[in-house]
Amino acid sequence: MTQKPLVGILMGSDSDLPVMKKAVTVLTEMGVACEMDISSAHRLPDKTAEYARSARERGLEVIIAGAGMAAHLAGVIAAHTTLPVIGVPLASGAMQGVDALHATVQMPPGIPVATVAIDGAKNAAYLACEILSIKYPEMTEALEKYREETRQTLKEKSEQLRLGQI
Amino acid sequence: MTQKPLVGILMGSDSDLPVMKKAVTVLTEMGVACEMDISSAHRLPDKTAEYARSARERGLEVIIAGAGMAAHLAGVIAAHTTLPVIGVPLASGAMQGVDALHATVQMPPGIPVATVAIDGAKNAAYLACEILSIKYPEMTEALEKYREETRQTLKEKSEQLRLGQI
Amino acid sequence: MTQKPLVGILMGSDSDLPVMKKAVTVLTEMGVACEMDISSAHRLPDKTAEYARSARERGLEVIIAGAGMAAHLAGVIAAHTTLPVIGVPLASGAMQGVDALHATVQMPPGIPVATVAIDGAKNAAYLACEILSIKYPEMTEALEKYREETRQTLKEKSEQLRLGQI
Amino acid sequence: MTQKPLVGILMGSDSDLPVMKKAVTVLTEMGVACEMDISSAHRLPDKTAEYARSARERGLEVIIAGAGMAAHLAGVIAAHTTLPVIGVPLASGAMQGVDALHATVQMPPGIPVATVAIDGAKNAAYLACEILSIKYPEMTEALEKYREETRQTLKEKSEQLRLGQI
Amino acid sequence: MTQKPLVGILMGSDSDLPVMKKAVTVLTEMGVACEMDISSAHRLPDKTAEYARSARERGLEVIIAGAGMAAHLAGVIAAHTTLPVIGVPLASGAMQGVDALHATVQMPPGIPVATVAIDGAKNAAYLACEILSIKYPEMTEALEKYREETRQTLKEKSEQLRLGQI
Amino acid sequence: MTQKPLVGILMGSDSDLPVMKKAVTVLTEMGVACEMDISSAHRLPDKTAEYARSARERGLEVIIAGAGMAAHLAGVIAAHTTLPVIGVPLASGAMQGVDALHATVQMPPGIPVATVAIDGAKNAAYLACEILSIKYPEMTEALEKYREETRQTLKEKSEQLRLGQI
Amino acid sequence: MTQKPLVGILMGSDSDLPVMKKAVTVLTEMGVACEMDISSAHRLPDKTAEYARSARERGLEVIIAGAGMAAHLAGVIAAHTTLPVIGVPLASGAMQGVDALHATVQMPPGIPVATVAIDGAKNAAYLACEILSIKYPEMTEALEKYREETRQTLKEKSEQLRLGQI
Amino acid sequence: MTQKPLVGILMGSDSDLPVMKKAVTVLTEMGVACEMDISSAHRLPDKTAEYARSARERGLEVIIAGAGMAAHLAGVIAAHTTLPVIGVPLASGAMQGVDALHATVQMPPGIPVATVAIDGAKNAAYLACEILSIKYPEMTEALEKYREETRQTLKEKSEQLRLGQI
Repeated sequence: MTQKPLVGILMGSDSDLPVMKKAVTVLTEMGVACEMDISSAHRLPDKTAEYARSARERGLEVIIAGAGMAAHLAGVIAAHTTLPVIGVPLASGAMQGVDALHATVQMPPGIPVATVAIDGAKNAAYLACEILSIKYPEMTEALEKYREETRQTLKEKSEQLRLGQI
Repeated sequence: MTQKPLVGILMGSDSDLPVMKKAVTVLTEMGVACEMDISSAHRLPDKTAEYARSARERGLEVIIAGAGMAAHLAGVIAAHTTLPVIGVPLASGAMQGVDALHATVQMPPGIPVATVAIDGAKNAAYLACEILSIKYPEMTEALEKYREETRQTLKEKSEQLRLGQI
Repeated sequence: MTQKPLVGILMGSDSDLPVMKKAVTVLTEMGVACEMDISSAHRLPDKTAEYARSARERGLEVIIAGAGMAAHLAGVIAAHTTLPVIGVPLASGAMQGVDALHATVQMPPGIPVATVAIDGAKNAAYLACEILSIKYPEMTEALEKYREETRQTLKEKSEQLRLGQI
Repeated sequence: MTQKPLVGILMGSDSDLPVMKKAVTVLTEMGVACEMDISSAHRLPDKTAEYARSARERGLEVIIAGAGMAAHLAGVIAAHTTLPVIGVPLASGAMQGVDALHATVQMPPGIPVATVAIDGAKNAAYLACEILSIKYPEMTEALEKYREETRQTLKEKSEQLRLGQI
Repeated sequence: MTQKPLVGILMGSDSDLPVMKKAVTVLTEMGVACEMDISSAHRLPDKTAEYARSARERGLEVIIAGAGMAAHLAGVIAAHTTLPVIGVPLASGAMQGVDALHATVQMPPGIPVATVAIDGAKNAAYLACEILSIKYPEMTEALEKYREETRQTLKEKSEQLRLGQI
Repeated sequence: MTQKPLVGILMGSDSDLPVMKKAVTVLTEMGVACEMDISSAHRLPDKTAEYARSARERGLEVIIAGAGMAAHLAGVIAAHTTLPVIGVPLASGAMQGVDALHATVQMPPGIPVATVAIDGAKNAAYLACEILSIKYPEMTEALEKYREETRQTLKEKSEQLRLGQI
Repeated sequence: MTQKPLVGILMGSDSDLPVMKKAVTVLTEMGVACEMDISSAHRLPDKTAEYARSARERGLEVIIAGAGMAAHLAGVIAAHTTLPVIGVPLASGAMQGVDALHATVQMPPGIPVATVAIDGAKNAAYLACEILSIKYPEMTEALEKYREETRQTLKEKSEQLRLGQI
Repeated sequence: MTQKPLVGILMGSDSDLPVMKKAVTVLTEMGVACEMDISSAHRLPDKTAEYARSARERGLEVIIAGAGMAAHLAGVIAAHTTLPVIGVPLASGAMQGVDALHATVQMPPGIPVATVAIDGAKNAAYLACEILSIKYPEMTEALEKYREETRQTLKEKSEQLRLGQI
């Protein structure tokens, strides 16, 4: 796979970094080059729109957007690109992400956002890999390998539990 | 007061008209010129941004935006203007406006949306009048007159109830 | 694009057909061949697992799964394939799809489901097209064309509103 | 009663152990042999299915399954056995178990999951005992004894409160 | 199996009959004798307590209780018996059963209620059958047969869909 | 006023004491004798019923009941007495009292529970005083005095704020 | 009992009449004189305050207030009287009374509102009777008689169900 | 702009100060004189009403009111003035501000409250500035300057992220 970023990860504020960095970790482990940036649907609307509009020609194939509260970031990006956009509702503020979930997933017909769990940055990355896998066969292999490792880890935990080690 | 529209009313779809027209009715009764348009944060993002950016110099002083589900319209407008933006969460879809309420009211610091009740288009208009009243003394009078009429209507209802007429 | 189905649409019951058929309509309009089937995470778990496991080698590239209440269908499919799986929470029963939304979107790390709005079958289809667009350039064109048509339709609605025709 | 496990306790992750171990404690106190294992509806779907399918012939009479977020574990087990399955929604993640409650209790007709409170592992065990009591008279006695002890404990607390000792 | 009722079905009001009768229909189809009665945790607390206290010696092995709003019926019954009690939250009133779900499922340690979906009277009956199946082998057969029929029905629906008949 | 307890305060567990003791403090300050006891709708149903049935003849005039989760205590007491029963939903468990609120306030017609805020033990006591005030004129005076003190305290806070002391 | 109204029933709008009239019916059946009026916390705040302030000296002993949405009526009345105030949250608007429940029950310390179920006007009346019963022995009798009738009605329903008549 | 307070900030309790002070900070930074006071819809209803009634003639042009739980403060103020009233729902108590949001935003027609996010005191201040900007051109400039600074800050964060400094 190319060394040029295929996945763009956007967040509305640097306070979202601790959660969103997990997506970078997963993508790196899976061998997918990515770029990460801070923008905001409300504070930098033009940069955000421009980012989305130019994404496909800059070589991006999936965009991941994380935002909290009235989380508009993923939706605003989706309005400016026909690339698949994955939304990560973040658990900030008093409503702990339920607001962000509603603001991310309940998109109107024509402009979908592929929404994952609240604070689900890891799954956003895995979903990006699955999307890439329809084009890059090595991605399918990487995913199958990851799934197999997950199965092994869980089986070992199961074994440890049976042996009274945990 | 001027005959040029002071209040712009925007909605994401023509299916929002039955509710949003109530704002026009109230504003007209209160003697406030307004304009109404359909735009969309997601389907016509550039028009929406341009509408908001040019609003103040076109003479608008308040913008009312109504949207349902992942209601981003008011927030996107607020991102492009420093005029006061009033958001009306609309009760469309399975969540009956709870999603739209969260997506409208839970805005991040710096870009507020003055949110009214779900389907509260009338109150959006009254709130617009109250905002205008800080500049136009005749608006204060119109509001006081309206409040007095409300009081009279309610007192008559009270009287009818006491007389067993309702 | 190929005439072999690229998108598989699964639902848990024939009562889900009225909503899920909208995905077929969109995909057909966008020129994407698809297949539709009824299976169930709970009543036909083996068929469902087999469907998912064989999906990639049968040529599918995206799977859309619609289910209501404790909607496990999308998650169970995702457990058996590394293809991207899109989940449509359906508004059946007393909770009107809020239960299905939670059961679809809150997936644990490693097995993501790309969740769209409650009853959002149309958006599931558009999201499938966006995913396919990273591989099939004609899909990007089709999406851009669709977006342009949406913009035109909305502009006409806006014009009609301004002319007092609606 | 037999020393062979009558109750199987399954959880999706070792992070669920602190809560789910409480079920083991209760069952042990009540004299019911049980086994505990880690499996996952999504990460080890085949093992989970096999576990459920073979449960009755392996001598299990009740299965307890604990899972958080989009908690599919109990439902997936229920799809593969006609033994009674008790679901424990776990309070992990931002939604604190409300998602897991919905994903566990709102099962479609034909495949029930006997759901207890969020984090209610103790009650899952007591419910298992009540189910076993229809077959094993000594279980009824054990339950009556437990209830009597509960009553005594509460009466003592009441007495202490009246005496100002607590 | 015995012709004496093994399952008691209780509801708080005759307005609950349309939903709760479905449990009778399922039990009858499965060959389980049952009795149905109206009682109330609040309006007939003594009859309800007596019903629960005498249930086991009268030969009942499972009790199903359906109630809406602040649904206390299942919990109150569970307080007076060590038989397994299945609670059906009913969708009456403005909250559409969410209140009844919380009042039924969130039982304190020691007194469990096996809760099924809102209005899930059918599943209450199937769960009762599963519980009985640990004691009556013919019940296991009946359940396996029912599951097989469900699979066949769903497969036929699937076939009809593929043939364009639905 | 009499030195015999007029208000009975019941709670389901000694873990509810820290919150429920606030009711005793308020009643004592207001000069109302009260008694406090631990009972449980589920663990000591007969004692609870007997407590309620004998309350009026023992001289109680108001009963306050605090319970968490599927809070049945207030409702069960209300079923056994025609004295006014005040319910305090307690914020225990994962749902933080929302479950208890629903289980306390949504009572069926005929058996009301006067519900106060989640953890609102203080207000339960003030409400008890207001109820007693229709019979005991000195209670009205005590309440007016308390309100006046509240007003003074708040006015002093206001003054301190204006002087920059807080 | 006196023929002068002991209970005042207030509602915010004549659209609340169909629900609130049920309170009058119950009170009349129970032999309690009452008065009914329309006022509003927001549209007639001064009348509402005056109504509350003068209530005790006008002979009222309980006030029932019904309101929907951001239901402030009961709270505002409670602020101006030390009489017991019963709040009825009404199911108007998109949120179906959940908003009104929160706005009625979650009162701050010192100013309680005795809250009943959403649309629970009947129970507001029964609660008023229970409150009056601490002062008027004939009210206790009337309540016991009503409870007995309720028990009879339910027992007849139970009998009819057993005889297959319903 | 005038040195006389244009914005009045009210809160129900001194425990609301840590959140509500943020509004003062923002207004001061924006060059808007403001006054802050503690009052309460329930504990000091007359002072609150008088505050609102006299606000316009005392020179206030916007009122900000913060309250938690059954947050009536903003609504009660709005009932007594035709100035624009901004409501800040505060996250106190077990429901973490969801109750306050409902009690603040769901106002009935005629008496609007411009609601901002839970604990959104900063945005209440920015919204006040936007309202003032329709009258005071220097306010528009201050807002544009603030927005520009926000953009710069975010761009710097973006730069730091790209350079691996955060």
